[in-house]
Amino acid sequence: MNRELPIGVFDSGVGGLTVVRALRESLPRESFVYLGDTARVPYGTKSPATVVRYSLNNARFLLSSGIKMLVVACNTASAHAIPALQKELSIPVVGVVEPGARAALAATRDGCIGVIGTYGTVESGAYQKAISELRDRLEVAAEPCPLLVPLAEEGWLTGDVPRLVASEYLGRLHARFPQADTLVMGCTHYPLFRELLADVTLRLFGREVVLIDSGVAATAEVVHLLRRRELEHPGEAPGTLRVMVTDRSRIEQVGSRFLGEPLTDVSSVDVPA
Amino acid sequence: MNRELPIGVFDSGVGGLTVVRALRESLPRESFVYLGDTARVPYGTKSPATVVRYSLNNARFLLSSGIKMLVVACNTASAHAIPALQKELSIPVVGVVEPGARAALAATRDGCIGVIGTYGTVESGAYQKAISELRDRLEVAAEPCPLLVPLAEEGWLTGDVPRLVASEYLGRLHARFPQADTLVMGCTHYPLFRELLADVTLRLFGREVVLIDSGVAATAEVVHLLRRRELEHPGEAPGTLRVMVTDRSRIEQVGSRFLGEPLTDVSSVDVPA
Repeated sequence: MNRELPIGVFDSGVGGLTVVRALRESLPRESFVYLGDTARVPYGTKSPATVVRYSLNNARFLLSSGIKMLVVACNTASAHAIPALQKELSIPVVGVVEPGARAALAATRDGCIGVIGTYGTVESGAYQKAISELRDRLEVAAEPCPLLVPLAEEGWLTGDVPRLVASEYLGRLHARFPQADTLVMGCTHYPLFRELLADVTLRLFGREVVLIDSGVAATAEVVHLLRRRELEHPGEAPGTLRVMVTDRSRIEQVGSRFLGEPLTDVSSVDVPA
Repeated sequence: MNRELPIGVFDSGVGGLTVVRALRESLPRESFVYLGDTARVPYGTKSPATVVRYSLNNARFLLSSGIKMLVVACNTASAHAIPALQKELSIPVVGVVEPGARAALAATRDGCIGVIGTYGTVESGAYQKAISELRDRLEVAAEPCPLLVPLAEEGWLTGDVPRLVASEYLGRLHARFPQADTLVMGCTHYPLFRELLADVTLRLFGREVVLIDSGVAATAEVVHLLRRRELEHPGEAPGTLRVMVTDRSRIEQVGSRFLGEPLTDVSSVDVPA
């Protein structure tokens, strides 16, 4: 394997740029190619079969451009498609669910872990399964919070509307799982609401609930795997970031919100079905 | 043309079932085949090129199943793709934008028409153009209200959140176009908020603003065209409704909200790209 190849990252849209941001902070010498499937976004409301199909399309496309590792930044794609991707690809494949589950285990005090995500992620049971398999006597409950995704894309990150929406969803979680001490943000969009989620959980649960960013957790896994497989880039120069999207609409405005810096190198691509 | 063939209707997802509902009320003897492109929904945040491509895919698919007329229920697809569809198809094609524009003209007192829709619909300028071309001295302003779509799909039709969201968007419209006396609901999802929109516009504008349902307006156009082209179904028996979707996820729950009755005949299909 050529260690100078970039790391491929795909996501249903622009949310995965929060993961790219974390990856580039930890791995400044690595180059990244990012594919956002903005023509078919979102994945979180679609069925497992559709998400697996789109994930394989995306992975094949990135593979054909030459990558040494694949990171699935999308939680819904990670929840449904990791087995299919690992079966087909010979390079390492890293999703966000298992790293997020492990980070939650490391953070929980009483073994009571809540998960929030899209309908697809929550209904897949992937986080619940990944957490339960880590250790005996862990309690898990998951709650879909679908409206946080369009709110983040629309840039409504503060104010009454996101606060009411977060309070409604987390109130449902609290009603049936008041013992949660740790909450996995199981969607790339949710870290944009970190402060709001911290505040709303404090009010609802009456104490601090530890928030876990699965994208950051996956970054640690990527660092570890690069080292173990001897795939670290040998050079000293800063790595590059190439962003490809399947639909350009509003990409510069929305994308930079997630990446945390302006998007400079964006191109449109057609991912074969 | 075989008058016994069904009328084809496509939409980006389930929102177009509000149009089917109006069509079936006006045309009880006609049969309908509905294609909801739920695997690629929404169209409203995507670029014109992508929406035209998806619209042609959908139209070809419906055409191959045998239809006598095509109704484009999706406002965004109507805004971008009607010329391309009319060029390719030999059967009549009816969108929702031109009928909506004509209904607004019929309703306006002072010639001041507001339009709300998705980013795609508003940025296309299709409604603005269609209205302006109808008559001299009409004033038009349009405002995107993207968050109303996921709110409708999530079933949050009443309460603080939709009220705050509608007030924010319509407040922006009011700030630059306080003279509006008529408002076109230029998205299939918005009629689900009719009462809320009536109330919020009353508060903001200080008087009643007439709300126009483009889907209902398109229905009148379909009735007229069937008669003029002598395409009315000759039978007396009630027509049927066949619903096809490209992704089944949550279709029964969400779809019946838009159709106004339970969805009974739903199948999954693969629309070739």
